[in-house]
Amino acid sequence: MAKPGPGRGMAAKGPAQKLSDFDGDAPESTDFANYFCTYAYIYHQKDMLEDHKRTGAYYQAVLSNKRQFQGKTVLDVGTGSGILAIFAAKAGAKKVYAVEATNMAKHARDLVEHNKLSHIVEVIQGTIETINLPEKVDIIISEWMGYFLLRESMLDSVLVARDRFLAPGGALYPSHAAIYMSPIRSNLAAQRTGEFQGSMEGWAEFLQEMQHYYQVNLDCLSDSYRSEQKDYYLHTSQWTDTHPQQLLGPAAPFVKYDLHTLTLEELKKPLKAEVTLHMTDGGPVDALCGFFDVWFRGSEENTTDNEIRLTTGPDPTGATHWGQQTFPLHPPIDCAPGDRLKITLEVSRRADNQRLLAVSAGITVEGNSIYAEQSKTPRQFKWNIE
Amino acid sequence: MAKPGPGRGMAAKGPAQKLSDFDGDAPESTDFANYFCTYAYIYHQKDMLEDHKRTGAYYQAVLSNKRQFQGKTVLDVGTGSGILAIFAAKAGAKKVYAVEATNMAKHARDLVEHNKLSHIVEVIQGTIETINLPEKVDIIISEWMGYFLLRESMLDSVLVARDRFLAPGGALYPSHAAIYMSPIRSNLAAQRTGEFQGSMEGWAEFLQEMQHYYQVNLDCLSDSYRSEQKDYYLHTSQWTDTHPQQLLGPAAPFVKYDLHTLTLEELKKPLKAEVTLHMTDGGPVDALCGFFDVWFRGSEENTTDNEIRLTTGPDPTGATHWGQQTFPLHPPIDCAPGDRLKITLEVSRRADNQRLLAVSAGITVEGNSIYAEQSKTPRQFKWNIE
Repeated sequence: MAKPGPGRGMAAKGPAQKLSDFDGDAPESTDFANYFCTYAYIYHQKDMLEDHKRTGAYYQAVLSNKRQFQGKTVLDVGTGSGILAIFAAKAGAKKVYAVEATNMAKHARDLVEHNKLSHIVEVIQGTIETINLPEKVDIIISEWMGYFLLRESMLDSVLVARDRFLAPGGALYPSHAAIYMSPIRSNLAAQRTGEFQGSMEGWAEFLQEMQHYYQVNLDCLSDSYRSEQKDYYLHTSQWTDTHPQQLLGPAAPFVKYDLHTLTLEELKKPLKAEVTLHMTDGGPVDALCGFFDVWFRGSEENTTDNEIRLTTGPDPTGATHWGQQTFPLHPPIDCAPGDRLKITLEVSRRADNQRLLAVSAGITVEGNSIYAEQSKTPRQFKWNIE
Repeated sequence: MAKPGPGRGMAAKGPAQKLSDFDGDAPESTDFANYFCTYAYIYHQKDMLEDHKRTGAYYQAVLSNKRQFQGKTVLDVGTGSGILAIFAAKAGAKKVYAVEATNMAKHARDLVEHNKLSHIVEVIQGTIETINLPEKVDIIISEWMGYFLLRESMLDSVLVARDRFLAPGGALYPSHAAIYMSPIRSNLAAQRTGEFQGSMEGWAEFLQEMQHYYQVNLDCLSDSYRSEQKDYYLHTSQWTDTHPQQLLGPAAPFVKYDLHTLTLEELKKPLKAEVTLHMTDGGPVDALCGFFDVWFRGSEENTTDNEIRLTTGPDPTGATHWGQQTFPLHPPIDCAPGDRLKITLEVSRRADNQRLLAVSAGITVEGNSIYAEQSKTPRQFKWNIE
C-alpha cells in the first residue's frame, strides 16, 4: 500500500475543553475528517482573510451600515478567526455571539481579547446545531459560501441558526444570493480531453506490462478505468480564474435565493432550473463558467443604508479565492452569434458526501443558425464539483 | 468559506451489496474518509501495481516458491485489485480467500473471473476484523506497508488476521521487516527553511494589510502561526527519491520485526530504539533518510526455497512508490568522517489519527572530532509523517 499524504488539515485536533457556558458539541467525526478539519488552521484562515474582495465586502456591509448594527445583538455562524464578529462589534453591536466548531475558536477568543472587545464578543465553541444562546439575535452574519455557492452545504447551518435564534424582523448578512452560468471559450476541455487520452494510452501500456511481467490480463478493468478517468478528467468541474474576455455571451442567473424565506427543506432538494444563455459571439463553446453573487440588504424591518454586493464572476483584476467553477463541454458546442443556449440544469448533493455536489445539464441550441437547426434533442452533460 | 477540493478519493462510495457468504462490515465511516477511500480507485491500484519493484518482489516471492503454495489455503489481506490472490492461485494454492474492505472487491472479483480462477479465489468484502472464513489458512499474504513501513497502521489488521485465521506453523508473506535510518546530504532542509521564512514574511505583510484595511490587529496569532508553519515546513518528513550518492554513511536498521511473533500490543506501543550511524563522509548532515525492507522467508515449518527481499532504500534506478521518508535537520548537524551519530528514536501513532505517525529523535555526535567534543547533550528533533 502507500496512500498519498492527506495534505494539511486531515489530522487537525478535535475540540478542546469548554470555555463558554453556551458551548455545544464537536462536529461528528466523519464530517470533521471530510470537512471541518481544514478550518482549524490559521494558514487557511489567512487565505480567506487576505481575499480582500471577500473580507472587504463584509467590512463594507457592516461598517458602512453602522446604524443597522448600533445596539444590536449579533450572531456570527462559523466565525473562524473571529473577524466578522469583530467587525460587528466595531460597528456598534451591543453583544456578538461568535460560534465556531473547530479549535480555531481559541484563536478567535485571543483575537477578540487583544482587540479589547471581550466585553462585546463572546466566542462559543460547538456546531450551531448543538450550541445554545441566552437570547434571540437581531442580526446573523456568516460567510458560508462554498464553490458554486452551495458546495460545503454550510448554508444549512445558517438556516438552522436563523430558525433557532433570529428574532422576528431580524436580518441576515448576506441576505440574498444568486448563481450564474455563462458560455466561455477555454482550453480546459481540450486540455482535459488530452489528459484523458494520455491516461488511456498509459493504461494500454500498463495492460501489456502486467501481461508480460506477471501473465495477468487486466483488460476486464478497462471499462471501469475509462469511466473512472472520464469522471475525473471530463466530468469534474475545475476552479478557474476566468478572464471576462473568455465570455461568449453574458452570464445569466439560474437561481436567486432570499435567505430570509428559503427553507431548509427547499435547500436540501435537488435544485432544478432552466436558463437561457444569449450568445454574443459564436461558438465553439468549450465550457460553462459558473459563479455566484451575494447581496447585503438587511431585512425588510432593518434595511441597509448601503447595499453591498460581493461578486465572484470573471474579473480582469483576478478572481476571489472562490474562483469560478468551469464545467468542460466535451466535445464543445457549436453555435452562431445571436443563438441561444437553452439549458436545463440540476444541482444536487452527492449521495456519498452531502457537502459535495453533482451538476447535470441538458443543452439545446436555439436560434436561426444551422447549429440551432441541427440541435433537435438536448445534449446531456454531468459533472461533479469536488 | 471555500475549502480546497478534497482530491480524488475523498468521496468514494461505501460498500455494495454482499456477494460472499463470508462478507463482513464496511470500515467505520471516519476511517473510511481518512483512509480507505483512496483504495477504491483503479488509478491508485494501478500506481501500486506498476511499481514493479513492489509487484515483482511479490511475484517472485510466490511464483519462485511454488512448492510452498502447492495445495495450500491462502488468505490475502487487503487484496485490492486481487493481484496477490491471483499469484497465489497461479502458484498452485488450493483455495485463496481475498479480503477487501472497499468496493475494489467488485473489480477483484471480475479480474479473478476473467483470469479463470474463480474456482480457487474467493473474494470477500469487509474489514478483516469483521469477515469470517470457513477454515484456517496455511499462508497469509498481504501488501500492508505504508511510508516508513508503519504509516497507515495496516499491519494491525494483518496481525489480527494471523491470530484469527493462520493455522499453527503457517507462513506470513512477507515474514520479516526492518526500518532503517541513514545520514544524507540534501537541499531539503535549506529549501524548507527558506519556504518557512518566506511564509513568515508573507505573514508580516498580511498583518499590516489587516491593520491598514480593517483596523484589526492579528499579531496575537503570530506565535501560533509561526508554530503551525514550522510544523508544516520543518517538522514534517517528506517523500523523496534519494540517490545513493547523497548518503554520508551506511544506513542502519533500528528495528527488526519477525511478523510471526510480533504481537498487536507491542506494535501499538510507541517504538523506542537506539541506532548508531557511522559517518563515512563528514557533515553537515542535512537530513535523515528513513526507509524499510521486508523479507519473504516463509515460516519455520514452511520455509521458502527462494528468499526474496523487497527494499525501498536509495536506489540509482529510482525509488519504489514508497520512496523514502526524509526528515530535515534544521540546522544541519556538523560532524567529521569517522564520527558516529548516536540517535535515540521514538516512533508513535498520532493521537489525532492513529494511521499517521510522529517521530522524535535525540542526536549526539560521537568520535574524535571537534564536533563530537562540542556535542555534549543530544539535540532534539521531532517530525510528523503525514
